[in-house]
Amino acid sequence: MELLKKTVGEIRPLDKSAMEAARNRIDSLIKPQGSLGKLEELSVQLCGITSKMHPGMGKKAVLVMAADNGVCEEGVASAPQIVTTVQASNIADGITGVGPIAKQAGAEMVVVDVGMAVPTKNPKVLSKSIMNGTSNMAKMPAMTRAQAIKAIEVGIETANDQIGKGVGAIATGEMGIGNTTTSTAVLSVMAGIDPYEITGIGANLPLEKVKGKAYTIKKAIELNRPDRNDPLDVLSKVGGLDIAAMAGIMLACAAKRIPVIIDGYISTVAAIIASEIEPLVKGYMVPSHSSFEKGAAAASRYLGLSPMLNMELRLGEGSGAAMMFNIMECAIAINRDMITFEEGGIDVV
Amino acid sequence: MELLKKTVGEIRPLDKSAMEAARNRIDSLIKPQGSLGKLEELSVQLCGITSKMHPGMGKKAVLVMAADNGVCEEGVASAPQIVTTVQASNIADGITGVGPIAKQAGAEMVVVDVGMAVPTKNPKVLSKSIMNGTSNMAKMPAMTRAQAIKAIEVGIETANDQIGKGVGAIATGEMGIGNTTTSTAVLSVMAGIDPYEITGIGANLPLEKVKGKAYTIKKAIELNRPDRNDPLDVLSKVGGLDIAAMAGIMLACAAKRIPVIIDGYISTVAAIIASEIEPLVKGYMVPSHSSFEKGAAAASRYLGLSPMLNMELRLGEGSGAAMMFNIMECAIAINRDMITFEEGGIDVV
Repeated sequence: MELLKKTVGEIRPLDKSAMEAARNRIDSLIKPQGSLGKLEELSVQLCGITSKMHPGMGKKAVLVMAADNGVCEEGVASAPQIVTTVQASNIADGITGVGPIAKQAGAEMVVVDVGMAVPTKNPKVLSKSIMNGTSNMAKMPAMTRAQAIKAIEVGIETANDQIGKGVGAIATGEMGIGNTTTSTAVLSVMAGIDPYEITGIGANLPLEKVKGKAYTIKKAIELNRPDRNDPLDVLSKVGGLDIAAMAGIMLACAAKRIPVIIDGYISTVAAIIASEIEPLVKGYMVPSHSSFEKGAAAASRYLGLSPMLNMELRLGEGSGAAMMFNIMECAIAINRDMITFEEGGIDVV
Repeated sequence: MELLKKTVGEIRPLDKSAMEAARNRIDSLIKPQGSLGKLEELSVQLCGITSKMHPGMGKKAVLVMAADNGVCEEGVASAPQIVTTVQASNIADGITGVGPIAKQAGAEMVVVDVGMAVPTKNPKVLSKSIMNGTSNMAKMPAMTRAQAIKAIEVGIETANDQIGKGVGAIATGEMGIGNTTTSTAVLSVMAGIDPYEITGIGANLPLEKVKGKAYTIKKAIELNRPDRNDPLDVLSKVGGLDIAAMAGIMLACAAKRIPVIIDGYISTVAAIIASEIEPLVKGYMVPSHSSFEKGAAAASRYLGLSPMLNMELRLGEGSGAAMMFNIMECAIAINRDMITFEEGGIDVV
């Protein structure tokens, strides 16, 4: 709890004067004002995060939080739980979806076992396991409040370690069979939306089982009665260790004033939890893609961030977030390398 | 006319068997089928274009076609025509919007004067000028049919030169004051949409002048009566030299079997012309971003390509197209670097 408290206490608003200076410079660059759209906004945001007119990106990393979910007992996922362990190892080896994308962007992969049912022998997966998967939320709370806080702190620790090694931009990712179920439960409670409206196929759950998945989520919420005004209560009762750790990463990035890239559905739900813990964290978040998972649009809308990539991805692992590094570099580059109207010899445009 | 004829004659359909093999491999990769969405489709398309299971990208280039439009006499643009000349030179120097973005992606900038009103002294701008700007389409045809064909052939020549130097992926861009006016005229005729519905602010034309711009477009169409079934007639009467040259680039890329990236509004209209000349060219086009210019959504819809980047850009110059190089590299990388389920030790997912 100490680390979480300390981290949240360090989070400050974005640097308004750096942002104003950046906006003024960008408006003087040799282009019709506003014509670089969201790239301009991103550029201003990065200046506000770092308090620098020309921020560097530093090293880049994709942090993947892996954990299992007890609710899989209810048949909400098509893949067996062991896939979490196998894929966490494969992700660390760079041979799944996110690997080639991260490599293309020059980003490191960091995979953490926050609580897989079965640990992996792959030493590339950092072992910070809190428990061997959560409990089945359809029968009891997924975890205790203390465990949820510990999981958040695993995320904080991991991010702090990376930032200490010179990482200046972090993309969030996850691996956890059953985590579209937990994410939908959290979103349902936080945004007040019926699970039947936002439950999707996750990793290709057969359509005829999606109703059962929604029913399980509804049952878990009714049983555990999470308090919507207490994000740690929601997280511990119907959330997951991966969601908690991702929220921790986001809080740590904000405390250390570096940008954190939100990935798809699960990451966006983690961002909602992080924002409920400390609303200022939102200023440090960079959205990436609109996930094709059913609840994703509602999650982005509720969070209030609009993703820039429309790739119909629904893999997770941080695969969409990793595509944003290049675009962030472009946002930094326009403000650094474009000339102003005055320098370009044009009086009026 | 010979070069255009020859180029169109060389365009073949995508390689269906290469695409089928790519699709089969991608479906066996260690992820839920389809979960990488449009990245998978792009990967398959690039295999179909190159007939290779693991295509390389080769060198990358952004080709910017610069030209002036006589219709500017009617007050349809906020900037004076000389800005075309000044900006073409600045683009070639890499100091405008597209420059830093192209550089981030490791792409060369190639700027061509297809018909600027005033030539530049900057030797980095290739001089292939056909005329000193088109005629005012509100009073007469913008150019002759022969001039339109020559402009297309400038695009073909430029692309062929670059491909000859090892370029394996081309992004299309333009610079030309007044070219949202000509693009809207072409789109209006081709798609049968009233100019008043699709005329936008271009490079920040004051809102109160947008109606006058639409009126000018309507007048030009009524005066010249372009034949919707003859794309060269539409292009020459109410189009522009930049649009023509970009269409030429697209045809050349298809003939030489390399991907060509469509940028925003003007580029999409050029893509419509190219597709009307030879429908097979569409298979070689990679969409990039949804431009924020008013008619852009209608143009993309009519063309039938759905852009992946949603950045609210409306600068042109190829700035959005240049952002696609990295994503194309990701599309190639997933198929090359991910392992299959079998290799990953997972039986069923």
